[in-house]
Amino acid sequence: MYKLVLIRHGESTWNLENRFTGWTDVDLTPTGIEQAKNAGKLLKAEGYEFDVAYTSVLKRAIRTLYLALDEMDCTWLPVVKSWRLNERHYGGLQGLNKADMAKQYGDDQVLIWRRSYDTPPPELEATDPRSERGDPRYAKLDPAQVPLTECLKDTVARVIPFWNESMAPAIKAGKRIVVAAHGNSIRALIKYLDGISDSDIVGLNIPNGIPLVYELDENLKPIRHYYLGDAEAAAKAAASVATQGKA
Amino acid sequence: MYKLVLIRHGESTWNLENRFTGWTDVDLTPTGIEQAKNAGKLLKAEGYEFDVAYTSVLKRAIRTLYLALDEMDCTWLPVVKSWRLNERHYGGLQGLNKADMAKQYGDDQVLIWRRSYDTPPPELEATDPRSERGDPRYAKLDPAQVPLTECLKDTVARVIPFWNESMAPAIKAGKRIVVAAHGNSIRALIKYLDGISDSDIVGLNIPNGIPLVYELDENLKPIRHYYLGDAEAAAKAAASVATQGKA
Repeated sequence: MYKLVLIRHGESTWNLENRFTGWTDVDLTPTGIEQAKNAGKLLKAEGYEFDVAYTSVLKRAIRTLYLALDEMDCTWLPVVKSWRLNERHYGGLQGLNKADMAKQYGDDQVLIWRRSYDTPPPELEATDPRSERGDPRYAKLDPAQVPLTECLKDTVARVIPFWNESMAPAIKAGKRIVVAAHGNSIRALIKYLDGISDSDIVGLNIPNGIPLVYELDENLKPIRHYYLGDAEAAAKAAASVATQGKA
Repeated sequence: MYKLVLIRHGESTWNLENRFTGWTDVDLTPTGIEQAKNAGKLLKAEGYEFDVAYTSVLKRAIRTLYLALDEMDCTWLPVVKSWRLNERHYGGLQGLNKADMAKQYGDDQVLIWRRSYDTPPPELEATDPRSERGDPRYAKLDPAQVPLTECLKDTVARVIPFWNESMAPAIKAGKRIVVAAHGNSIRALIKYLDGISDSDIVGLNIPNGIPLVYELDENLKPIRHYYLGDAEAAAKAAASVATQGKA
């Protein structure tokens, strides 16, 4: 049996300000820093050890991983950083306030943008200063790979090849892996692993900074999953993620 | 022309306590943290950008790199961590005070241990609790590759293959690289690049946390090198490294 540990980054400045973030490279808040350290403390207390760590190329996930590994005294672990684990791109909504958008367009429209499986938010224009095209961290990608918006289906389409080509083979080779990523890249992975339907995935919310353990069989099919630490606190934190887009 | 940036880690707790460190995984002091951040600020102010970073598997170098990259807002860079960039192993001296050893064995003996090219300090016993054999970060190595002591010649013998197989090809492929490492792994590399003799390398000291830039021709032969920032401060810091083993 294999174990896979998933951590959504700690609270970011735009989580706190209730803004759509996507690929915008915002940092952790002091609370987010504490959440990341606590994730490491929980993993250490439970005796977790890892062979390799994965994260995105966004600093809120990278810092969360670094702080957690530091608590576990294993910053020496190899770390694989991939744009494929980035948050879902939020298109023209990036930087805008979720509650303001709900007031302007209605709760239902914002819920569609936030949670519809296959309806992306409006595109960011490639020339918009908010666009990531031209950012050196994406310089090696085909410009068409740098999204101008994404629905969760698009995120699944870029996360799963990385799972199949990098993470799954590592797990099958006996490597114990930890992943520090984002609400929607983690939802994309869980949807695939658990075979969650396009409609049911809408109701899945991932709290910040709480290690989520997946136990997998020899074919990497999930046997069970659970949050480390206080289960009630994790459920409460997940529920509060669900309400962020309400006016 | 290529540029290679080398950074010795910031001051460590055992630098401060004047103890032989070697492969012991001690952390930075508050001064060391500031030095690391300042290295990043200097690099940023001078407009340096990198494509890949290299460091050892020891936290004082890893943290120095992380803090410097954080100042440059590029923690997203790929980071290659290798035991081959570790500090020289100090054998049975690891943990002992340099000045105490000089009182006990004399300045000359300590200078031999610290700076002789081919005389290693006494071996650490493999069963000594200070030995790194059994540390998970070295689990994939042949136990014989985990040293019980090293002279600089031994350090050169493990650093240069890594240079030839990983760093030099990356530079020739156009990648701009930064290396956060240790006094003796950097001395080993510089000895090789500059063709410094076994006797002259004794006089080369690397200060903590000051970026050292090597400009290299198309065959990776050094054209010139310089410290970033205040040259006088760098020279003073290097000179103080030289006096650490005096009673």
